[in-house]
Amino acid sequence: MSMNHNQEIRLASRPVGMPTRENFAFVDVDLPVANDGQVLLKTMYISVDPYMRGRMNDVKSYVPPFQLDHVMDGDVIAEVVESRHSEYATGDIVAGHLPWRLYGVSDGHGLRKLNPAQGPVTAALSVLGITGITAYFGLFDIGQPKPGETVVVSGAAGAVGTVVGQIAKLCGCRVVGIAGSDEKTSYLTDELGFDGAINYHTQNVGLALKEVCPQGVDVYFDNVGGEVTDAVLMRINDGARIAMCGQIALYNATKAEMGPRLLAQLVVHRALMKGFIVSDYAPRFSEAIKRLATWVANGNIKYRESVIEGFNRVPEAFLGLFRGDNIGKQLVKVAQSE
Amino acid sequence: MSMNHNQEIRLASRPVGMPTRENFAFVDVDLPVANDGQVLLKTMYISVDPYMRGRMNDVKSYVPPFQLDHVMDGDVIAEVVESRHSEYATGDIVAGHLPWRLYGVSDGHGLRKLNPAQGPVTAALSVLGITGITAYFGLFDIGQPKPGETVVVSGAAGAVGTVVGQIAKLCGCRVVGIAGSDEKTSYLTDELGFDGAINYHTQNVGLALKEVCPQGVDVYFDNVGGEVTDAVLMRINDGARIAMCGQIALYNATKAEMGPRLLAQLVVHRALMKGFIVSDYAPRFSEAIKRLATWVANGNIKYRESVIEGFNRVPEAFLGLFRGDNIGKQLVKVAQSE
Repeated sequence: MSMNHNQEIRLASRPVGMPTRENFAFVDVDLPVANDGQVLLKTMYISVDPYMRGRMNDVKSYVPPFQLDHVMDGDVIAEVVESRHSEYATGDIVAGHLPWRLYGVSDGHGLRKLNPAQGPVTAALSVLGITGITAYFGLFDIGQPKPGETVVVSGAAGAVGTVVGQIAKLCGCRVVGIAGSDEKTSYLTDELGFDGAINYHTQNVGLALKEVCPQGVDVYFDNVGGEVTDAVLMRINDGARIAMCGQIALYNATKAEMGPRLLAQLVVHRALMKGFIVSDYAPRFSEAIKRLATWVANGNIKYRESVIEGFNRVPEAFLGLFRGDNIGKQLVKVAQSE
Repeated sequence: MSMNHNQEIRLASRPVGMPTRENFAFVDVDLPVANDGQVLLKTMYISVDPYMRGRMNDVKSYVPPFQLDHVMDGDVIAEVVESRHSEYATGDIVAGHLPWRLYGVSDGHGLRKLNPAQGPVTAALSVLGITGITAYFGLFDIGQPKPGETVVVSGAAGAVGTVVGQIAKLCGCRVVGIAGSDEKTSYLTDELGFDGAINYHTQNVGLALKEVCPQGVDVYFDNVGGEVTDAVLMRINDGARIAMCGQIALYNATKAEMGPRLLAQLVVHRALMKGFIVSDYAPRFSEAIKRLATWVANGNIKYRESVIEGFNRVPEAFLGLFRGDNIGKQLVKVAQSE
């Protein structure tokens, strides 16, 4: 790919239900020029995340929707290939919320320099990035796990769930993950040290929870919603805390899905359920990154990234999230460092 | 009714769905004898409450179930008609959790003396009793209303809802009640000072909320559940607090009712939903009673009681709760003070 070729990914149409490749358009654009105070960035890695599905709808929410026929954006790692900015040098690797373009310019606002000597830079999009930080605040601020308690996490093999479970283990909890394949459940128990794991595709989640959480559920970290969450709600203990992080099972619904009314469980068990958005914790991100980095350096937290190569495969990587293709963080590798 | 006639109400059978008169049995029993350290009590008022429906099922919950063919019980006001207890005198009026009997004995455990000079003793079963205390803790501890916020309460004309709304007004909130008749909505706005009221039987609750809560909903105090709660959830603001007190719409369901899956609203709006049981606040009851009594004495909180006369009509009063017969607290008057 020569440096005089530039391309961006635009929202071509808004999906109804499950998105398709046709909702994305690849458009050739001019190579931008870095002016004084700017850097020219070459995109290296792009993060695809379930929350982006919400941005494809024309609905006001906590993140503004993608605009039709405009470039999409998200968390990206890029290399500075030309600098006219005093704080950046050619060759610097940075992370930031950036457009999905092969090359772009930035005035440095919102960029964070990464140090490749401290470990793989991709960690800034995974365990030391938004998904790791999400796990950290949702579990500590809402879940408030105590030693000996049982913590259940759905979407357990994903970027957030894997970190949630491992932090809960560090807190002295019994940890059970719910995931969608035997490969994933084995990963959770054999590699990450979860006490138990349930494959919701092949097991009755309610019966399995009864067996693997004989003391009930004290903390539930929910990435999924739907029937998996129904089953967990039926097993909560008095005083349970439920951190509502995501509802990926419902993101592609074309109308409100129906399910059993189970909120009386919250009354009977005096349970707390709270939704959260990680960006609300922005002033405390450095606290989370510091602790996560220490755990990663000590080997207390392991992480995996599912990497697909090629800018043209961003849509494919994104769509795979809803099939549960990924273990750990799903990334797209766009280019090497130069 | 002569004092040598005694009778009690037993659970004759467990209801499936809506309870009926046949689930209750009136059984003649011996007049008990007060031994040393005991008082003989004559029942004056019986409180019937929605939560008792749960006790008619054979299901472990926060209050033990009623036992088949055993006497039922609840909050009662009684008169001491004979005392062999040093702390009680004949003629004392007491409140306590007692069996549904015309006459019973007690060793004084759990009894609270009432002072008829301070106002109607029935207040101990309503605004200064469990329902008022429930309103107090649910609203303050979970709802945490702030001046200028919008507070919505369902079951608004009931014993709990009327107190919730009036306390919220004292906190400087805009208060909207949802209730089941025009008589009730008029009572809320015209007599209790609610800013708005919605009749869920005749109005589209979602549309009505949009009109009467133009700034959205910051606090929701839920006594009802079901479709009313669905509609409120669609109007919550960021950071909303939802106190789950009861789900009367669902208490007589014979299987889990189905409804739209709306928990994503909690995520998008970082909302908190928490169930509670008033007995968990028992160590703080006196705080609530003191403040409620002051508000009642000052005329800041008004209350109404729906009183049915006759021990034989306890089942009828109870069943009426599920038809929404009552405004304010539903009581049964069993006997006069002697």
